[in-house]
Amino acid sequence: MTDLPFDIGSLHDAYAGGLTPRQVVETALARLAAADDPGIFIHLADRDALLAQADALGGFDPARLAAMPLWGIPCAVKDNIDVAGMPTTAACPDYAYLPERDSTAVARLRAAGALVLGKTNLDQFATGLVGLRSPYPIPRNAVDPALVPGGSSSGSAVAVARGIASFALGTDTAGSGRIPAGLNNIVGLKPTVGAISAAGVVPACRTLDCVSVFALTVDDAWAAFAAMAAADPADPYSKSVAVPAAPARPAALTVGVPAPADQRFFGDGDMGACYAAALEALAGLGCRVVELPFADFYATADLLYEGAWVAERYAAIDGFIADHEDALHPVTRTIIGGARKLSAVDAFKGLYALQGYRAKLAPVLASVDLLCLPTAPTHYTVAEVEAEPIATNSRLGTYTNFVNLLDMCGMAVPAGSRADGRPFSLTLLAPAGQDALCAGLARDIHRAGGCTLGGTDWAQPDGAIPAGADPAAGEQIELVVFGAHLSGMPLNGELRRLGASFARTVRTAPSYRLYALAGQKVARPGLVRTDGPCGDGIEGEVWRLSPAAFGTFVAAIAPPLGIGTVDLDDGSQAKGFIAEPAGLGAAQDITRYGGWRGFAADIGLYG
Amino acid sequence: MTDLPFDIGSLHDAYAGGLTPRQVVETALARLAAADDPGIFIHLADRDALLAQADALGGFDPARLAAMPLWGIPCAVKDNIDVAGMPTTAACPDYAYLPERDSTAVARLRAAGALVLGKTNLDQFATGLVGLRSPYPIPRNAVDPALVPGGSSSGSAVAVARGIASFALGTDTAGSGRIPAGLNNIVGLKPTVGAISAAGVVPACRTLDCVSVFALTVDDAWAAFAAMAAADPADPYSKSVAVPAAPARPAALTVGVPAPADQRFFGDGDMGACYAAALEALAGLGCRVVELPFADFYATADLLYEGAWVAERYAAIDGFIADHEDALHPVTRTIIGGARKLSAVDAFKGLYALQGYRAKLAPVLASVDLLCLPTAPTHYTVAEVEAEPIATNSRLGTYTNFVNLLDMCGMAVPAGSRADGRPFSLTLLAPAGQDALCAGLARDIHRAGGCTLGGTDWAQPDGAIPAGADPAAGEQIELVVFGAHLSGMPLNGELRRLGASFARTVRTAPSYRLYALAGQKVARPGLVRTDGPCGDGIEGEVWRLSPAAFGTFVAAIAPPLGIGTVDLDDGSQAKGFIAEPAGLGAAQDITRYGGWRGFAADIGLYG
Repeated sequence: MTDLPFDIGSLHDAYAGGLTPRQVVETALARLAAADDPGIFIHLADRDALLAQADALGGFDPARLAAMPLWGIPCAVKDNIDVAGMPTTAACPDYAYLPERDSTAVARLRAAGALVLGKTNLDQFATGLVGLRSPYPIPRNAVDPALVPGGSSSGSAVAVARGIASFALGTDTAGSGRIPAGLNNIVGLKPTVGAISAAGVVPACRTLDCVSVFALTVDDAWAAFAAMAAADPADPYSKSVAVPAAPARPAALTVGVPAPADQRFFGDGDMGACYAAALEALAGLGCRVVELPFADFYATADLLYEGAWVAERYAAIDGFIADHEDALHPVTRTIIGGARKLSAVDAFKGLYALQGYRAKLAPVLASVDLLCLPTAPTHYTVAEVEAEPIATNSRLGTYTNFVNLLDMCGMAVPAGSRADGRPFSLTLLAPAGQDALCAGLARDIHRAGGCTLGGTDWAQPDGAIPAGADPAAGEQIELVVFGAHLSGMPLNGELRRLGASFARTVRTAPSYRLYALAGQKVARPGLVRTDGPCGDGIEGEVWRLSPAAFGTFVAAIAPPLGIGTVDLDDGSQAKGFIAEPAGLGAAQDITRYGGWRGFAADIGLYG
Repeated sequence: MTDLPFDIGSLHDAYAGGLTPRQVVETALARLAAADDPGIFIHLADRDALLAQADALGGFDPARLAAMPLWGIPCAVKDNIDVAGMPTTAACPDYAYLPERDSTAVARLRAAGALVLGKTNLDQFATGLVGLRSPYPIPRNAVDPALVPGGSSSGSAVAVARGIASFALGTDTAGSGRIPAGLNNIVGLKPTVGAISAAGVVPACRTLDCVSVFALTVDDAWAAFAAMAAADPADPYSKSVAVPAAPARPAALTVGVPAPADQRFFGDGDMGACYAAALEALAGLGCRVVELPFADFYATADLLYEGAWVAERYAAIDGFIADHEDALHPVTRTIIGGARKLSAVDAFKGLYALQGYRAKLAPVLASVDLLCLPTAPTHYTVAEVEAEPIATNSRLGTYTNFVNLLDMCGMAVPAGSRADGRPFSLTLLAPAGQDALCAGLARDIHRAGGCTLGGTDWAQPDGAIPAGADPAAGEQIELVVFGAHLSGMPLNGELRRLGASFARTVRTAPSYRLYALAGQKVARPGLVRTDGPCGDGIEGEVWRLSPAAFGTFVAAIAPPLGIGTVDLDDGSQAKGFIAEPAGLGAAQDITRYGGWRGFAADIGLYG
């Protein structure tokens, strides 16, 4: 059992086979002891209390997973996120306080059945991407101990990569939820800003911060994200973001990448070669790669540390820093102390500059479905970063620093190994709210790469999409399409341009007839409900849209088509195309084909 | 002709009767001379050039009004908004520059046929609500010269109130587009931030500024607004906002007002009495008044001058102020100079505080359709403001300062006279994008009050809604409802909660049948298109929704109803309810009633 993979599916399977949460906690603690890395955790949960929590979960019952999708799953929490009864240090011992209440994110994880092993190390006050800016021992990179672990969420990433925790919480302002994932061969989910409440989190830049998730697989990261995502009155920056039960993406995607002249690898030819190969491989996943000029993305990134946002880091701890400046890590003190030179005029000029880039880049981002970038441009050893702590850190943020400023979401995902054995990671990025799209492609990239998980030799688990609860599905609207909007058909682009994401293939109840409409510019069918069974049902595809996209879509539909409610063969209902019988005119009944694809193939439609 | 009212409808009628634009320009200049108020304009257009522009319009042709809705209409422009070839001073002569190009707003006005008379006086750098903070002569209040004209858009408001310009541009950051309207008995339209491009405008607070419109009537303000509203790549803060051709509002509205304990009149009992009477009168306009606690609105307002936003005013002119501090008006220098003490940390803390109030007030604002407030809490004489320039200015902003910070739009509208003959004005406010709702109620309040226009003795014109172009109508979606969603019916609240705005009453083409559906929780009809005429058409109401609201609405519709395309009796089409015939079952054909209202009345539905 000490070799049991800690991905959520494997654990739940093992629970179904008789394993107990107590045994999982004991395994986690044994692995931590075996790792012999005192830098991972700053504070470990009391062993007896943790075992008692595990026992209190009772016996495993798969029926409870809908309400408690993280039942019995061990996790770790970055030490700038409150866990009741454990000190929050933000890797600054003098700053420590003992929170009485869980942060909202942790409270939601516990409600979903997760077990919190402890609080993990970080670059102090979440300022850094290297993982070395901590007064505690430095966690060792789980793949190659010569390399930096990455930061700021260093301990969380290593705890997952070593198979100690199934997932871990990080935070991400400039890349702290992505860089350590990339450097430790695991998945890093950086949600849309506001999707997970930041109440009970020590701020770095309050306007940009998000709680992030490290996990061994995309599905696991998604499960933890889905459990936490919710608007929270305690965090004025939180908001409601659509979180479907599982990541999904349409078969065909347009993926933006930096034009070759704008790619930055700082002389690391191996990383450049891996990236080029990865972009080639995207074609096999149905992606069309489009090169974009990247100067404005880099200029946006420069605002983060060269502009006024450093003042947010100062504002987060100004009461503390006034009396305890010597308590700060020297590098952190240098960076955050720089805010003293910044005026309110500087701050507003920074906001104006950012708004300028946002407006300028909006059409660029709208021209693709998502971006696919290297997570980090190169690797650094501990010795290299110690020799040049600020410049190396800056370079690591090449492909991460602009993301939160532009209100994008993203996911870092392992994409194989380099020739030198160091991990190679891609990051997928999309505008706010498109978390599921990033995760959907990340999932396919992870599988296609086939690499083992983190620093373990565990193979990737089989890929059944978990049937978890879907707390926020109501915020997206599901639409069933039956004709020219099916994937690969001529009008499918209308859906994708509206940001729709593919959910699943379905069939209607048997009481529907399908007609090929006469007189349409693009050949398309009409679906009509009858009073009783008249066939085997009609095949369709469910796509998810935001309310605005759905509204725009419905408004553009011409008669005799409209959107009503369609009964599916599994007894559920979805919004879908209906047709007014008065408009059917010379339409041809094609119900016998069972769907538009069969008819289209038979008569050679769309050539 | 020297008495010709300068509202747009009267001018266009006069043009149709043979008046020429040259004559109108001459009348405007004659009125300016007669006013004998050198404080109104800082720069007047060259007379010959202006007359040449008027002549260049050619002969009046009503068919051109769709493309040029402001054909031959004289306007004035606040002197912080660029007009090509006229100096922009922002009421600071040393700051003056000569722009080569029109601001985007002015360029759009000219394209719509407007004639720019000149540039008007203002509180220097648009900092102030009194109109006295200018090195130029102070414009005289058009109703009572003892009173301050209000600011910062002082000259623009007076030019309109005196009948010299049909409308005038102001700017509004803290109330500069509303206070001078209120003090001069005219209409002040403060649009949603970003609805009109601010490119070519001297900034005050770039994150909050908007170009505003002063006019004699709500319809005229709307016409100018509609001509200018458009997203503009030259202004990163600009955005696309729905601007229907005419203001409209549903018959029944819920109107929020400050609870009596939170009302502030600074001892001005006359203003309090007028406000109380105005709220009583709202019932006659179909409004239900709801008292709200107002402390958080006032606390938000305090952020504007006590928080860090003053730094935006400094940022706007920091290059200039460094070398020309003595060139500033003493009061302006004191206020803007205060920004030197503000750090970037202060700025971000201000943003956090604002986000907190925004989150806290969002549900309060969602509980009503709009707010109805006094425009100003009291009147001040010139002497009173000169004695206490900063405190009196602050008090004037009681009901205006929080508005742009909360991303609301609004309209100040004359609501009668006080016992002492001074004007009384109400301001209607609603969340961003609801400009038409504010204008719709403002229009009814203006008419109900019946007061004369500005400082003239002109009566209000008759109220035909102008049939102008509708450049942005496509951004809202029109939905025709036929049953329980009609105004006053039980499901109408669903529309209003989604932010829908009433557009007009319509009738379908004669080929529709209406059925009373069986088995509905709330009694409702189904509309079915037939192959030919079967009645006189069915009465419905068109409501406008944002795409997101429309999408949310469609997603909630239960079968057999859906949304398709409905043919109207005027030959146009709109999205509207359709019904699947298979679901009609035991439905009763009620086509003969011509609509759901007739049927509901006949059988005593909703009793």
